[in-house]
Amino acid sequence: MVSQQSARLVAGTPAIAVAHFAAEADPYHPGTNPRGYVNLGTAENRLLWDLLAPRLRAARPVEAADTRYAPLHGTARLRENVARFLAATRGVPVDPEDLVIVSGATGALDVIATALCDPGEAIVVPVPYYGALDTDLTGRSGAVLVPVAPGPGDGLTPGPAAVAEAVRRARDRGVTVRALAITSPHNPLGRVYPAGELTALARVCAGLDLDLVADEIYANSVFGSTPFTSALDLTGDLIDPDRVHVVWGFAKDFGLPGLKVGVLHTRGARVRDAVRELAYFAPVSTDTQWLLADLLDDKGWLADFLDEHRRRLSASYTRVTAELTAAGLAFAPAQAGFSVWTSLRPWLARDDAAGERELWRRLVDGARVSLTPGEVFHATEPGWFRLCHTVGADAVTEGVRRIRQLLG
Amino acid sequence: MVSQQSARLVAGTPAIAVAHFAAEADPYHPGTNPRGYVNLGTAENRLLWDLLAPRLRAARPVEAADTRYAPLHGTARLRENVARFLAATRGVPVDPEDLVIVSGATGALDVIATALCDPGEAIVVPVPYYGALDTDLTGRSGAVLVPVAPGPGDGLTPGPAAVAEAVRRARDRGVTVRALAITSPHNPLGRVYPAGELTALARVCAGLDLDLVADEIYANSVFGSTPFTSALDLTGDLIDPDRVHVVWGFAKDFGLPGLKVGVLHTRGARVRDAVRELAYFAPVSTDTQWLLADLLDDKGWLADFLDEHRRRLSASYTRVTAELTAAGLAFAPAQAGFSVWTSLRPWLARDDAAGERELWRRLVDGARVSLTPGEVFHATEPGWFRLCHTVGADAVTEGVRRIRQLLG
Repeated sequence: MVSQQSARLVAGTPAIAVAHFAAEADPYHPGTNPRGYVNLGTAENRLLWDLLAPRLRAARPVEAADTRYAPLHGTARLRENVARFLAATRGVPVDPEDLVIVSGATGALDVIATALCDPGEAIVVPVPYYGALDTDLTGRSGAVLVPVAPGPGDGLTPGPAAVAEAVRRARDRGVTVRALAITSPHNPLGRVYPAGELTALARVCAGLDLDLVADEIYANSVFGSTPFTSALDLTGDLIDPDRVHVVWGFAKDFGLPGLKVGVLHTRGARVRDAVRELAYFAPVSTDTQWLLADLLDDKGWLADFLDEHRRRLSASYTRVTAELTAAGLAFAPAQAGFSVWTSLRPWLARDDAAGERELWRRLVDGARVSLTPGEVFHATEPGWFRLCHTVGADAVTEGVRRIRQLLG
Repeated sequence: MVSQQSARLVAGTPAIAVAHFAAEADPYHPGTNPRGYVNLGTAENRLLWDLLAPRLRAARPVEAADTRYAPLHGTARLRENVARFLAATRGVPVDPEDLVIVSGATGALDVIATALCDPGEAIVVPVPYYGALDTDLTGRSGAVLVPVAPGPGDGLTPGPAAVAEAVRRARDRGVTVRALAITSPHNPLGRVYPAGELTALARVCAGLDLDLVADEIYANSVFGSTPFTSALDLTGDLIDPDRVHVVWGFAKDFGLPGLKVGVLHTRGARVRDAVRELAYFAPVSTDTQWLLADLLDDKGWLADFLDEHRRRLSASYTRVTAELTAAGLAFAPAQAGFSVWTSLRPWLARDDAAGERELWRRLVDGARVSLTPGEVFHATEPGWFRLCHTVGADAVTEGVRRIRQLLG
């Protein structure tokens, strides 16, 4: 007998998770496993290990103090170092007291959703959106998501007017809408919000009494020409700074997804008190905190790493898009992130979600290539797939070749 | 504006937490800070670092695979090694598939409470009990605790009849009681449940349709003559094994509280599925998992460590109880754990909770000694204090001397 609140979290392992683990269990290698799975479905950056390894291995040996009880919302040293890092790369002052460190960006999204929403209350999210938000923002909080589709003339993502309209419609239906959540840079589109668009979304929030949750986990993975604007940079004229909550972590910008270190920045005393209490349930091991604080302390290494990270990301993106173009596959141009939003719509046997699922199944079983179908991101149009390219040039080239071969 | 579900977690920092941080900020040292605080309030074992340091520092350098995505309920390797450890030290078979690893024993208690209870449903807990259960078992789950006081002739803890009676009374009041939770060995009493008593509690659970949650975080910190019996050792004749849930972690038995690694053992498929989903919100960093898997792999070191841990714990207990006896202070004999349940009742100005709080305040401010008052453990009788002795002989001797001096 399990509780209802936990039973609703359990709904069978999704097919894409099965595909991910199948792909990881039998991975493609040009020399040793040329018929293995090419996994372009997981947003890991595997291009950075040669830069990370010497820095991580140079860490001083663990000390007794690293293994003792510490504040459960993050050690003072890691919060100070993360604050300095966020301030330097976003160009805004950051107070370590406004930071809460938890075991993963998932945890950070969970605690802010729980702090803002009671069960049944809603967060609006523009589509397409990072599919894990369905679990991260609602799984424990009991909040519900209200997806916002693009309005007429909006392109792939809804503009501010469509967001405002969706909030009003939800409220007309009696839904209590508490917040707008965005991924910025956008996942899966890899789009960098221009400052003007971010400002317009902040005005929507201010006008409609919403908090703004910005997941900026790809903030230092920008390679395009549009400069990244952080939600931390929004001024009090646009929106009450206490109502802006920014999530970040080490998974993407540092290529360390296994370390499960998420950061929440929030300025209002009441929400901060609440998220600190929630952080008590998902602390990060003090040795990992110490390792990352040490890494951020090495300013020379850090500057070189961020530059080289951006350079390799850009090169990887340039390479994959050239290959997609040569293969005759359309995609939405990206400026950030690890993936390309690729359209295989012309090859759907039926122009709907069932057709997309069928093509996905053929890609996995026939071509042995794992991509993530647009349905997972609640895309309104069928046939989009997220293709992650930061897994090494060999695998990407082989993946695109197999996709092209399958499509004929 | 914060949600109601998070606001109820925020209730001002308790006085004892303030005392803890004050004590840690100005710690007693016989040579360099003889007037500093003696912190006997925190259950840390600081007697083990010389054994741990060489083993932790001998770990191989971090590899790329240690930093990648891994199953969020624990890496296969750590679950296998923990399963082998639990099996060896408890004398029962343990399947790694029945284990979920989360970021701390707090998290393990939280996920099992959430899996078993919906908000408002109850867990019965014999008093005195580890005060943090109030937060761990209820803070996110929404469950409520029903404390069970000792019945006539029960001594310091309630026997099976008192537990059964409390469940019946709660049900008569309309409360849905789902589980019995115990700490075994007992915290704060340091008592080891005799096999017969554990069996009797299991029968109560079976008879009253309750799950049994056993927090066995001190299972390898037993130094008395009563052999430890794990709830894993209860047979299907006594209670459905699917309804027994055991919590363990590295904080106490390995003296590594900062690493925040909690373990939940649960056998039933439905509860296991639920706790795996909940584990998604509180994963442990893969580098920490690797470090601990490596430590458990070193069988020679492990056997020596566990022996020496027990030897030092026993010596520390023998020393502090001799000092308490010499100082004329009564205590409940312990057989496990890091603390002694000490009675200062004769020195209360008033024989009630207010008197206990007043004496606690004098101990902290006057004697600069931090102990944890019995009220925190929901003790039914005033004047008990938990005194943690595993912080080094100098501090303990000085602490007892100051207590005696204050009491006059």
